[in-house]
Amino acid sequence: MKRYAFFISDGTGITAETLGNSLLSQFENIQFERVTLPYIDSEDKALAAVAEINKAQLESGQTAIIFDTVVDKNIRKVIDGAHAFKVDIFSTFLSPLESELGEKSSYTVGKSHQSALSDSYVARIAAINYALDNDDGARTRYYDEADVILVGVSRSGKTPSCLYMAMQFGIKAANYPLTEDDMEELTLPACLSDKKDKLFGLTIDPDRLSAIRNERRANSRYASLKQCYHEVDEVEHLFESNNIPYLSTTDASVEEICTRIIAAAKLQRRFN
Amino acid sequence: MKRYAFFISDGTGITAETLGNSLLSQFENIQFERVTLPYIDSEDKALAAVAEINKAQLESGQTAIIFDTVVDKNIRKVIDGAHAFKVDIFSTFLSPLESELGEKSSYTVGKSHQSALSDSYVARIAAINYALDNDDGARTRYYDEADVILVGVSRSGKTPSCLYMAMQFGIKAANYPLTEDDMEELTLPACLSDKKDKLFGLTIDPDRLSAIRNERRANSRYASLKQCYHEVDEVEHLFESNNIPYLSTTDASVEEICTRIIAAAKLQRRFN
Repeated sequence: MKRYAFFISDGTGITAETLGNSLLSQFENIQFERVTLPYIDSEDKALAAVAEINKAQLESGQTAIIFDTVVDKNIRKVIDGAHAFKVDIFSTFLSPLESELGEKSSYTVGKSHQSALSDSYVARIAAINYALDNDDGARTRYYDEADVILVGVSRSGKTPSCLYMAMQFGIKAANYPLTEDDMEELTLPACLSDKKDKLFGLTIDPDRLSAIRNERRANSRYASLKQCYHEVDEVEHLFESNNIPYLSTTDASVEEICTRIIAAAKLQRRFN
Repeated sequence: MKRYAFFISDGTGITAETLGNSLLSQFENIQFERVTLPYIDSEDKALAAVAEINKAQLESGQTAIIFDTVVDKNIRKVIDGAHAFKVDIFSTFLSPLESELGEKSSYTVGKSHQSALSDSYVARIAAINYALDNDDGARTRYYDEADVILVGVSRSGKTPSCLYMAMQFGIKAANYPLTEDDMEELTLPACLSDKKDKLFGLTIDPDRLSAIRNERRANSRYASLKQCYHEVDEVEHLFESNNIPYLSTTDASVEEICTRIIAAAKLQRRFN
């Protein structure tokens, strides 16, 4: 049994997708065929969307679900013609919010995402460049600018986490891979020892680490279970003995890892 | 006049934030102080959240707005004690969806984001690594694996776009900076000429390009208006003469650029 789910927006469709997927994920036994229709900002485009939805309903024999954030009334009316099951995000919430806030909403197209010239856009690009330039210990002399410096063994999830924090929140995150030498000494390398308040550790289940490393370098010493158990054990000792807060990335998505780091390290987002 | 807006979730809070910010952005004249309270997964944590909300209301003299995706009934009851204006995302939409789909929702905590071992997690990390390894023409021999290869002049927005497509959709995106030599010849470099169906061009307003380049290398020839006008003119000629689809990144956010590329190039997302 296949159900079509359409995400329809006059902008990128990201709000409709995020909310819609979050709701759909609550229904585990149903297979959804997801289609995003962004930039539906004219009645003509809406008519084409309706035709696509009707075709999908006919093909699957099931009522389609529509998640819709279109604000223009005339375009909405066209979409209503699809006779699908409509989850109308804006009208359900905007009208009560208008009453509570005592102000009419702007009902403008594509308001919800930052434009290319805004402060938050500049902060985001600066943070992405910072994450790229200060990845994997490549450069350590700009750690003064960092909001946070992630530390951990190779393949514990540092790079994706730094990029996500930069992309989503404009946070400047560097990362430094701890080597066996650092760990055996139980002392931090010089470039980190005076930045202790910025350090955040990542650890990971050794079996999982070994599986990840094997994908990159199969059957190497680097990927061996023995080596992974050893490194993880040492790195956790290092975190403990230096009072570095840390968390495990084993069963966490990149979103979850970053949300937890931001909360635990009390990092300030540069935009929302 | 300051209003507090709280995003409350038993998971990362990303759904509550995305929807909430999208709704709040419709009210241009109100300053919101945004607070995300993630991982509210016990009644004790909910009580602490209520205390924080009440304190904020008292301090600002304004009713706080709550955007809430908590699914547990007992935790919800505690949050209801805050007497704020509550936008209840799940209960408003989940119950009608249950009727339509003929299935009870799972009401589980943190269902909406992929776990670390899922196929989509692996696809995401693979795509991020691909974007990093194949950034800025660093490597060209793995272009067969690319879903798309972005081309354009330096600083036209290629790198953030590749990373965003990887992070959000698992799309493998490489990028290659077109140089003056490529442009003057009006021919594509050898590494691109047999990959024409994968190419997508980015262009940008020359004044904007000059401003961006000046941030990196002030008063250089590279950043000069004359040079930027010249390069943009040439690169658009190159796109046209080789039938490469392209778009302008000038007034677009990274989300918008990527959504448009995906639609125009009909790229398949590896997850939603």
